Amino acid sequence: MSRLDSFIRRALAQRDCLAEAVRRIVALDGPVIELGLGNGRTFDHLRHLLPDREIFVFDRHIAAHPDCIPDDKHMILGDFCETIPNAMARIGKPAALLHGDVGSGDAAKNAALAAWLAPAIRPLLAPGALVVCDQSLLADDFELFDLPAGVETGRYFMYLRRE
Amino acid sequence: MSRLDSFIRRALAQRDCLAEAVRRIVALDGPVIELGLGNGRTFDHLRHLLPDREIFVFDRHIAAHPDCIPDDKHMILGDFCETIPNAMARIGKPAALLHGDVGSGDAAKNAALAAWLAPAIRPLLAPGALVVCDQSLLADDFELFDLPAGVETGRYFMYLRRE
Repeated sequence: MSRLDSFIRRALAQRDCLAEAVRRIVALDGPVIELGLGNGRTFDHLRHLLPDREIFVFDRHIAAHPDCIPDDKHMILGDFCETIPNAMARIGKPAALLHGDVGSGDAAKNAALAAWLAPAIRPLLAPGALVVCDQSLLADDFELFDLPAGVETGRYFMYLRRE
Repeated sequence: MSRLDSFIRRALAQRDCLAEAVRRIVALDGPVIELGLGNGRTFDHLRHLLPDREIFVFDRHIAAHPDCIPDDKHMILGDFCETIPNAMARIGKPAALLHGDVGSGDAAKNAALAAWLAPAIRPLLAPGALVVCDQSLLADDFELFDLPAGVETGRYFMYLRRE
């Protein structure tokens, strides 16, 4: 499979997982957290899917399309290790959905970040909240959530925040 | 439509157009030209589709995944305006297929590049060669080629190099 094929599958998996997650949190109050603004495509997608929710976006720096940059209240700049532990003061109440597109080309760094991330994000999430992530997280903190039909195992990940 | 939706449509259109072009040039001898290496995804896709063809890639600099960088013979570095007019010496014979992913976020720059590009690439292409491009080119130099079913007009462009 070429990198273009792989990239398309990943983008479709991401979109399918987000659509499924949005359906599942309809009745769960709370804002949305986006880890990694990147070029802003997924942030833009989330605000289309959930126009009535606040979306708080975390990233080290802004490299997004100018139309896809959150306002100052909702853009939290800095290293995840510094911004996530203090995030509840900023987001105000537990989130109903978290999307993380946090992987890089470095597998060891990805694994370390994923191990750190699971316990770090748990306190930010409402019981029953969903996590959609490009990395596999530690199952101790979360329950694996069934991927939508058509999304291959390992292409994207979904978790339920345990009660 | 969100930017993620739009991006997915564009990637699918690109892949469908390349698949169609590759089918149409089976009997036409000649190398492949890729304008814009970028992250190397499309170059990787082209070498999967056409493992027996030489692929010459033009870009100003290399920012691709290390696995997706052509060898020195096939990577032509520099501004298109300098490298393309002298390219026949490098590629050796007229190309059967050219793919151009040359657009930026600047519509005026894109239009200027597209206007310059059509006559500049024509001498590099064999009669009957196909062009697959993210920009609309001047029809004087090329004949519009029907897009594959499912690809919206304006999402991607295909041209036949007139005899």
